[in-house]
Amino acid sequence: MTTPIIFDTDPGIDDAQAIAIALVHPEIELLGLTTTYGNVDIDTATANALLLSELAEQEIPVAQGAAAPLVKAKHPAPAHIHGGNGLGDIELPEVQGKALSSSAAEFLVEQVNARPGDITLVAVGPLGNLAAALQLDPSITGKVKQVVIMGGSIREGGNVTPVAEANMFNDPHAAARVLTAGWPLTLVGLDATHRCVLSPQDMDRIAAGQGRLGKVLADSYGFYSDFYRQFLGIDGCCPHDSCALAWLMRPDLFTTARGHLTVVTEGFAEGQTVFAPEGRPFLDERWSATPSVEVCLDAQGARVVEWIVDVLS
Amino acid sequence: MTTPIIFDTDPGIDDAQAIAIALVHPEIELLGLTTTYGNVDIDTATANALLLSELAEQEIPVAQGAAAPLVKAKHPAPAHIHGGNGLGDIELPEVQGKALSSSAAEFLVEQVNARPGDITLVAVGPLGNLAAALQLDPSITGKVKQVVIMGGSIREGGNVTPVAEANMFNDPHAAARVLTAGWPLTLVGLDATHRCVLSPQDMDRIAAGQGRLGKVLADSYGFYSDFYRQFLGIDGCCPHDSCALAWLMRPDLFTTARGHLTVVTEGFAEGQTVFAPEGRPFLDERWSATPSVEVCLDAQGARVVEWIVDVLS
Repeated sequence: MTTPIIFDTDPGIDDAQAIAIALVHPEIELLGLTTTYGNVDIDTATANALLLSELAEQEIPVAQGAAAPLVKAKHPAPAHIHGGNGLGDIELPEVQGKALSSSAAEFLVEQVNARPGDITLVAVGPLGNLAAALQLDPSITGKVKQVVIMGGSIREGGNVTPVAEANMFNDPHAAARVLTAGWPLTLVGLDATHRCVLSPQDMDRIAAGQGRLGKVLADSYGFYSDFYRQFLGIDGCCPHDSCALAWLMRPDLFTTARGHLTVVTEGFAEGQTVFAPEGRPFLDERWSATPSVEVCLDAQGARVVEWIVDVLS
Repeated sequence: MTTPIIFDTDPGIDDAQAIAIALVHPEIELLGLTTTYGNVDIDTATANALLLSELAEQEIPVAQGAAAPLVKAKHPAPAHIHGGNGLGDIELPEVQGKALSSSAAEFLVEQVNARPGDITLVAVGPLGNLAAALQLDPSITGKVKQVVIMGGSIREGGNVTPVAEANMFNDPHAAARVLTAGWPLTLVGLDATHRCVLSPQDMDRIAAGQGRLGKVLADSYGFYSDFYRQFLGIDGCCPHDSCALAWLMRPDLFTTARGHLTVVTEGFAEGQTVFAPEGRPFLDERWSATPSVEVCLDAQGARVVEWIVDVLS
């Protein structure tokens, strides 16, 4: 039995690794890639989504979406992390295909309505496309099978601010809409992804296993891991976005809890995901007023990385 | 050599334990108690401060301060935690003395100016009195020896909201003023105090060691630990406020880091202490713009409790 997914992404080096998993995993049916600004600008995101599918010799529908946040002003893309071209500034083959004429939000709504109860949405960038889909058709909350979000942080602290993870900070209003929409949702945030480190040796195995696609993953990994070495003192990189798929296929490798999320949209804590565990009383009800969701609090990092490498080698 | 302190407090059961330490520790010179609303209303706080000194047969100046927050509306006092009388609703002897005619803020300013460079302010309630003192005389930032604050949380999560500790939540605007005033400051928050559990056996030793004062501490402890058992599943209680004094006298029992604090004053994260470690770059400078302070990230809980019990038995 396969798991049909739509993968919403801003590729991005760790996105590329996750897209590769979605392309090659025999039990994942990749219905489409929807693109957003985030790690890169929107045109680059779309080009990279097309390119990665072509390198895997697959024709995957790509629908372009948000070029900017819902409400706040756009921050510059982090070229020091992902490179100006989103793939570590390595030389890339020319893209052959092109994106659909429908927007990411339209594609999401159309697909979910065509297969009610079947489709899992996996989103690993800022959440504007899912918010836009909810604006077009709020009834999709009852028609998706599952929503998996890479983003946020419960106890781990942030990566772009002391308390906020990049995807949530990039578009906190979209995140607030999506995380409180009342659909079956699991948040795979830094509490899990920071437990996972993909080493140079792991990447060697992936490169050997994936032909032309593997070469792009390995070459771009070099740029990404330079950032990790220089800024975080880590030899390797956190495969953030792959963790969302790891949770989907191997939830047994994660520690989760149920509760209520709210997203801070203004002030010093902008972009923070505030989590009220189920049944825990606080001073008033406002933190427990949102629909129940699941969050990851921990992961068996080495085993998640082993799963990623096994899928890709 | 003794350490002269002024102890700012909203007694409160764990405050009473800390006041007892300040009263009996041979190396602490307790110059005065300043009172604030918080665990109890202001009149109760003042009465309890007077009473605890009298039970220890000491004449300690008590100056009454804030009856309400600086900006936000006052929440009701948590009578289910500390009792309506702040000491577990046990029967209490009559108070003999009375508070000074000067306010807490005036007393703080007067004392600090009289002994520049000498005095440590230890504050274990909402921070309105210290904020009011800074409003009267901002120059005290250069004249205190040290400021020790029990409050806040860096990675531990909150106790009254998912992210905010009670003292900070009670008056986030005062906390923002005090934590960013640019004086030598150490925050002893839940990351440290939650490592410490004072057991019923510990309290038996304290009761045996402190005569009439010990009996009030032990009897009120029963009420407080009922709350811990029922709501938190802990057999004992966290001696939050005593930890501030433990840090002052035994900093070797704590793990600390330097960095920059900002306090969230509005929204879902209201009252959160956001900590940017020294030298860690974030997306922009706003989290690192405040003066450098020290925060506790961990404590050797068993040894802190041993210190408390040794002082009081």
